[in-house]
Amino acid sequence: MRVVRKDAQRNRERVLAAAREVYAEQGVEAPLDVIARRAGVGNATLYRRFPDRAALVEAVFHETLDRVRQAGEEARRAADPWAGLNAYLEAVFTVLAGDRGANDLMTTGLQGVPSLETLHPHNAETLAGLLGRCRRQGTVRTDVGTEDLLFALAALGRAVPALETAAPGAWRRPLALLVDGLRPEAARDLPAPPLTADQLSGTLREMNRTRSRPVPG
Amino acid sequence: MRVVRKDAQRNRERVLAAAREVYAEQGVEAPLDVIARRAGVGNATLYRRFPDRAALVEAVFHETLDRVRQAGEEARRAADPWAGLNAYLEAVFTVLAGDRGANDLMTTGLQGVPSLETLHPHNAETLAGLLGRCRRQGTVRTDVGTEDLLFALAALGRAVPALETAAPGAWRRPLALLVDGLRPEAARDLPAPPLTADQLSGTLREMNRTRSRPVPG
Repeated sequence: MRVVRKDAQRNRERVLAAAREVYAEQGVEAPLDVIARRAGVGNATLYRRFPDRAALVEAVFHETLDRVRQAGEEARRAADPWAGLNAYLEAVFTVLAGDRGANDLMTTGLQGVPSLETLHPHNAETLAGLLGRCRRQGTVRTDVGTEDLLFALAALGRAVPALETAAPGAWRRPLALLVDGLRPEAARDLPAPPLTADQLSGTLREMNRTRSRPVPG
Repeated sequence: MRVVRKDAQRNRERVLAAAREVYAEQGVEAPLDVIARRAGVGNATLYRRFPDRAALVEAVFHETLDRVRQAGEEARRAADPWAGLNAYLEAVFTVLAGDRGANDLMTTGLQGVPSLETLHPHNAETLAGLLGRCRRQGTVRTDVGTEDLLFALAALGRAVPALETAAPGAWRRPLALLVDGLRPEAARDLPAPPLTADQLSGTLREMNRTRSRPVPG
């Protein structure tokens, strides 16, 4: 009985390690049988433990996503919202840069992953709260809203793994330039209205669809 | 003889129109036989006219890319470099937003397309020249270089087709925020050195590879 539990535990760890590798290489839509092969376990064993992709993705990334959520909680409590905003973005991008699988997960629309479904609204609320406080503090321009920041972060976030491959740590520079564009000192009139929440969701869905397009030929 | 030439001309136009459609839908790596089928011509006819993908892409996008190059020439002659920079970025993004095939072409590393091989260095020189003049003018911070701008434009440019689908014209707003981040008024010390030219090429190549990754499963 003891031996069986140990074996089961070892198999589980092997599957999680293999999944983490494969997700980093191929993204979180990699097929389960590739992961089973990499882990050296049968498909049946893997499916018994993780009935679908979302369950396995949750097991692999639960801790990472929860760390981002915690960074959000901390930033919300920051006495200085501008410092809180910068610390939170640093934490988010450290994850986006450090783990290609987590990046793929956080920037795709994979459904049914509980930690991700918690994190998305949590992230938006963290940013909305901090931006509001920064605007009142005078450190963020009054014409910039949560949708502006979410879109800009999504566009930069998707480029971060490529940047990280070519120049580790270099993401800090474009992120700083992005944040400087939020400051009131340089603000000129913006030439278009902000995205609505629906337009932002539509944009992120479409960014996702475009990226995932298989290139034939 | 006259009839033959007319037929040939009609076939050529049909192929170019079909190619433009297919490139907008599937990107410029779409296979030639999909284009032949869409145009209603045989593969042999298409290959006789356009021996490889690059030749067809050149024929479809030559005018568009040349228009961007001309916008660069105009911007270089602008009396006010800040106005020139903004006008040029507006012209580039109008193309990136208006033609998904052209966007795909301008943000991929497809080799052997003469207009693209002319445009890439021309674009970098246009931006380098304008940035230099803007820095001396005091309208752009002194710590921002051409690689910073090229990277930021690439990251935003790739998100533009998705944005355009959800909210036509909305790209003007994130572009304005990006440009405001270049202004000296809001500049704080940047936390990482600029990319070298090689690191930038590596990043763009990798962004490309990642996007084009077929998603299995």
